[in-house]
Amino acid sequence: MFKKTGFLLILFSAIATPTYAATPTTESLELSINLVWVMLAAFLVFFMHAGFAMVESGFTRAKNSLNILMKNFLTISLATLLYFVIGFGLMFGTSAGGFFGIDGFLLRGRADIDFFVFQAVFAATCATIISGAVAERIKLSSYIIITIAMTAVIYPVVGHWVWNGGWLAQLGFVDFAGSSVVHLTGAVGALTVVLILGPRIGKYSGKKINAIPGHNIPLGALGVFILWLGWFGFNGGSTLAADPSLVPRVVAATLLSTSASLVAAAFYTKLRFNKIDPSLSLNGVLGGLVGITAGCANVSLGGSIIIGLVSGVILVEGIRFLETKAKIDDPVGAIGVHGICGIWGTLAVGLFDVAGGGGLFYGGGPDLFLTQLVGVVAVIVWTMLTVGSFTYAINKASSIRVSKEDEIAGLDFAEHGSNAYELKETLLTSETEPLYGKSIGSDLATRLNSLGKPS
Amino acid sequence: MFKKTGFLLILFSAIATPTYAATPTTESLELSINLVWVMLAAFLVFFMHAGFAMVESGFTRAKNSLNILMKNFLTISLATLLYFVIGFGLMFGTSAGGFFGIDGFLLRGRADIDFFVFQAVFAATCATIISGAVAERIKLSSYIIITIAMTAVIYPVVGHWVWNGGWLAQLGFVDFAGSSVVHLTGAVGALTVVLILGPRIGKYSGKKINAIPGHNIPLGALGVFILWLGWFGFNGGSTLAADPSLVPRVVAATLLSTSASLVAAAFYTKLRFNKIDPSLSLNGVLGGLVGITAGCANVSLGGSIIIGLVSGVILVEGIRFLETKAKIDDPVGAIGVHGICGIWGTLAVGLFDVAGGGGLFYGGGPDLFLTQLVGVVAVIVWTMLTVGSFTYAINKASSIRVSKEDEIAGLDFAEHGSNAYELKETLLTSETEPLYGKSIGSDLATRLNSLGKPS
Amino acid sequence: MFKKTGFLLILFSAIATPTYAATPTTESLELSINLVWVMLAAFLVFFMHAGFAMVESGFTRAKNSLNILMKNFLTISLATLLYFVIGFGLMFGTSAGGFFGIDGFLLRGRADIDFFVFQAVFAATCATIISGAVAERIKLSSYIIITIAMTAVIYPVVGHWVWNGGWLAQLGFVDFAGSSVVHLTGAVGALTVVLILGPRIGKYSGKKINAIPGHNIPLGALGVFILWLGWFGFNGGSTLAADPSLVPRVVAATLLSTSASLVAAAFYTKLRFNKIDPSLSLNGVLGGLVGITAGCANVSLGGSIIIGLVSGVILVEGIRFLETKAKIDDPVGAIGVHGICGIWGTLAVGLFDVAGGGGLFYGGGPDLFLTQLVGVVAVIVWTMLTVGSFTYAINKASSIRVSKEDEIAGLDFAEHGSNAYELKETLLTSETEPLYGKSIGSDLATRLNSLGKPS
Repeated sequence: MFKKTGFLLILFSAIATPTYAATPTTESLELSINLVWVMLAAFLVFFMHAGFAMVESGFTRAKNSLNILMKNFLTISLATLLYFVIGFGLMFGTSAGGFFGIDGFLLRGRADIDFFVFQAVFAATCATIISGAVAERIKLSSYIIITIAMTAVIYPVVGHWVWNGGWLAQLGFVDFAGSSVVHLTGAVGALTVVLILGPRIGKYSGKKINAIPGHNIPLGALGVFILWLGWFGFNGGSTLAADPSLVPRVVAATLLSTSASLVAAAFYTKLRFNKIDPSLSLNGVLGGLVGITAGCANVSLGGSIIIGLVSGVILVEGIRFLETKAKIDDPVGAIGVHGICGIWGTLAVGLFDVAGGGGLFYGGGPDLFLTQLVGVVAVIVWTMLTVGSFTYAINKASSIRVSKEDEIAGLDFAEHGSNAYELKETLLTSETEPLYGKSIGSDLATRLNSLGKPS
Repeated sequence: MFKKTGFLLILFSAIATPTYAATPTTESLELSINLVWVMLAAFLVFFMHAGFAMVESGFTRAKNSLNILMKNFLTISLATLLYFVIGFGLMFGTSAGGFFGIDGFLLRGRADIDFFVFQAVFAATCATIISGAVAERIKLSSYIIITIAMTAVIYPVVGHWVWNGGWLAQLGFVDFAGSSVVHLTGAVGALTVVLILGPRIGKYSGKKINAIPGHNIPLGALGVFILWLGWFGFNGGSTLAADPSLVPRVVAATLLSTSASLVAAAFYTKLRFNKIDPSLSLNGVLGGLVGITAGCANVSLGGSIIIGLVSGVILVEGIRFLETKAKIDDPVGAIGVHGICGIWGTLAVGLFDVAGGGGLFYGGGPDLFLTQLVGVVAVIVWTMLTVGSFTYAINKASSIRVSKEDEIAGLDFAEHGSNAYELKETLLTSETEPLYGKSIGSDLATRLNSLGKPS
Repeated sequence: MFKKTGFLLILFSAIATPTYAATPTTESLELSINLVWVMLAAFLVFFMHAGFAMVESGFTRAKNSLNILMKNFLTISLATLLYFVIGFGLMFGTSAGGFFGIDGFLLRGRADIDFFVFQAVFAATCATIISGAVAERIKLSSYIIITIAMTAVIYPVVGHWVWNGGWLAQLGFVDFAGSSVVHLTGAVGALTVVLILGPRIGKYSGKKINAIPGHNIPLGALGVFILWLGWFGFNGGSTLAADPSLVPRVVAATLLSTSASLVAAAFYTKLRFNKIDPSLSLNGVLGGLVGITAGCANVSLGGSIIIGLVSGVILVEGIRFLETKAKIDDPVGAIGVHGICGIWGTLAVGLFDVAGGGGLFYGGGPDLFLTQLVGVVAVIVWTMLTVGSFTYAINKASSIRVSKEDEIAGLDFAEHGSNAYELKETLLTSETEPLYGKSIGSDLATRLNSLGKPS
């Protein structure tokens, strides 16, 4: 059926791999150990997509849940395929002047498939940041087109600058696991699309800012835990090797910084609003994770705690500012989490670095801080320009926003003709609806008591 | 209390293990690395049971949730115990003519306990496939008996044929991680039981086919993500070694094939029904996973994408055919996912193999394809005969189906005297029910606004 | 900004790590392998906190969900920070007479950061046990103070006794992964606080014992699966090395014992109450996990199954006894799971040990059993005294219990001014509420049927 022509070469291209040594040597063993570490990390980063899906679904309204879930599944799937075809080559191919790669598409000529897997699930996280911010009002088709642009081109180019010896790397810019490369890129993309898209119906009515509470915070909280778990792979796996001098520090910094950020966000909301706010505290976890991502391999454990404490506080004020002053409607707080804490995390390396030349607070002078600032500005400008012009164009061609009727009815019904939940029955059985010949309510109570301990 | 007699020998039998070298050698280190890899994979496969539980619970009605959860917990538990006592020996013991094993029961004489752990959680996945298809109407006791037969005998025999040098392995049959051994076996078992069991009340009324929507799709979607995660262990761990020449290809093929299958299923439902159907798309993920399971170590990455694309489309048509034409009521689509994509995945090795003699599309001739076909037929015949005669017999003794009253009331109430949810109160608090001295509804709104950003 | 003074030394202190060998040696490779194993285990133990959060949230009422989630997030975060500052040093520092450690605070002078990470997430599990038992009525602020005491001092001291060569270790006390050190300590802490706190309003009215069912058992069941998964890291990682002679036995014992315990609990409730009780069965999983924790490296696989079977039965009777006779109101059954099975697991080593001198059933005499008993008593006395006096004191200063009004309104509203769920809309859309111009109910049904298979 197929001939051994161009197409087949592509099909074959990815199986040129190092031979497995029959007799283990220290070199072959090192390959195996690093393989296990990178695979573990890749699995954890993959699982972050479940976390994003649960956070975005739980923190928005029930009527848009299926739509958000589909967005998340399509993001990881399309991102993986496109990154295989185009993105990986653009990011890690031979550099054209430090700006983008020019080979390695379809993994041709590459033997580092484990590295590809890790980077592919990474790439998808950048794109998925957008889905939360634009939730409840963007057309699924428009979202898909933007995701394609992000994972095939926009993110890989930034990645090339920093992680494949590109121009930012040559300047000395430090972003170990991607506070800027992944999170700020995603957040600026999100902000740009949101500016074109506008707020949800009912969010701002005149001077009034209405809270639109999420429908299932326990599910969202589970998502936050999954993200925290996955982030150990995100930061820890960015070492690309099971290096005992580096991995423990990276993991410990991630754990301590995030803990500090949650504590800071919780107590700061208590101080500020007189209540510990659950949603802002949960976002505090995510802000802490984003904040330590750039510097996790470069700062001391004490430094990581300080970075986390600051992340937790600026996250709260940042989200409030975006929502109440800038009137940016971001249902899950993604722009605050990934943008504000992404900037902070990147700049913080310039303050707290102890691994390289030294941050400002460690006597290293302002050079690194300024380099970090250049990187932040570059990522913002590039992403805003590319996402902005692209989204503006497709919005001109056909509005990226669903109709008012569809938005009110909910995207689950409008785009999928279906519901996320069928809970009416649950309520009937826990009410006194006559079922099964008699009142199930009272009968249940009797039976439950006879069981002693039903919960 | 116990004497050092037969019983004690059994208790002791499993602790004959290789000694841990005080000074590491390359050989001892290789053991350790492979151990970590196989343990990681085993943990992931174990976690698939959480995935199955959430998919099956979420995709069925709330009134049967506890029952399905209990089935899943009992499946992993009983399967593990029975596989320890009987199944592992039947599967991996010394072969009796290529048909089944005859020693190694209770792990006597076996030192490969890590291999046992991995295989035990594997065995349970085969059995659990049935629970989704028979949900909402089978007696828990009948399900338990069928599970025992599956994990103690029916599945281990198939496993012996393919993975312990049995007759199918001798023919050259290729099923790397179990599209047939695990998934087709489970699906044929499910189909057989469903044929005896019949459809749920209300599914088919005259010529009308009624949709019975699942009650909690976000929970089901989380289950799909967990299954996808677990499958990296399912396929990747089937290498049994941290082999850098094999593992990355297996994992990448699993990632790309599944991504392609989700995309295919989503866009195909859009084409076919004018909407992206969330449930079929989510099943597309599972179908893609099943489809690449047989060939993940044998096909190129390009081949894996094609296998996935086909999986996504045949899954949609397959489920529709089973439901609307064959009138097979399978609440979660398990027979389509594991059966149709299991067959496709097994046969696809005969088309796309590049690791062995070569598939049909790669100039290897029809031999491998025909061998794969023989394997598929053998699994279907064996499983249908054994599960069919066994289930027929127990159904004769006492109906495997719950009473009509119990089915209507829900199995949670009928079999467990309990409810999965108590959400009435949730609704009261989010309504305007006066609580706490005043209307909580309006008070809440006020407070939420004063907090700024509650979600 | 900062000078290289005391503060900076602390910031720097944690980065003295072994250098990564440029050329791998068998010794450096061993370090790497063990690192990967311990990190994997630490990630799994970390994820147990998601499991605890879901179990505790699902098994209690919806109106207290946010509060419980916040408790769980604050526990892992505060525990990690405090263990870094104080706990780790008290537990693993140079011993003061076998009672507590006196150095290593803030990791000063320690290079084993991976070990710290593993121990930090361990420490948090001990504290989080309390949160389930005191749910739905304790003030968040009081809970936080108790958590601080547990993780900074009370648990680390017990840990020092057993795992850092302290007085119990010197006696020959065996508790491989913490049936006593972690679980019994947590359970006794929980019991002590509950005795001061009293039962929830409505639990005991005169002679009547009212069931207060959990609001979301599927979420709780997911939590149980997550805990089971995490426990493979909890027990398996306590080997601290990827030792092929030890790890497979530990993991297999954990899997088999827990399976046996679930089966025992399920069938025992069937026998005892005529129904398989889901909640008690799920607690049977947890009881089985706690029961095998002390002996997982010391008993045979047969022994592990027996330990599990016993765990499942005593768990059921234990929880019933605590609830109906002792009138201890423990919403999630934590005291039964971690206390009763913790004691059983610790004592069981004295009966079933085959690795050390031998348990009573293996001809080892009563010595080990008596030593185990001494350990259990010591943990109970220490924890009860410290937690008791501490909680008594803070309760005197300001009641640790919320007001009656707040308890009735729910802690989510009272402490956080927010709700965990907004499901009203879900019900409206699945009702016949006119939306989108026409009845969504009937329209949906039509569309669903036209889609063929929506679930």
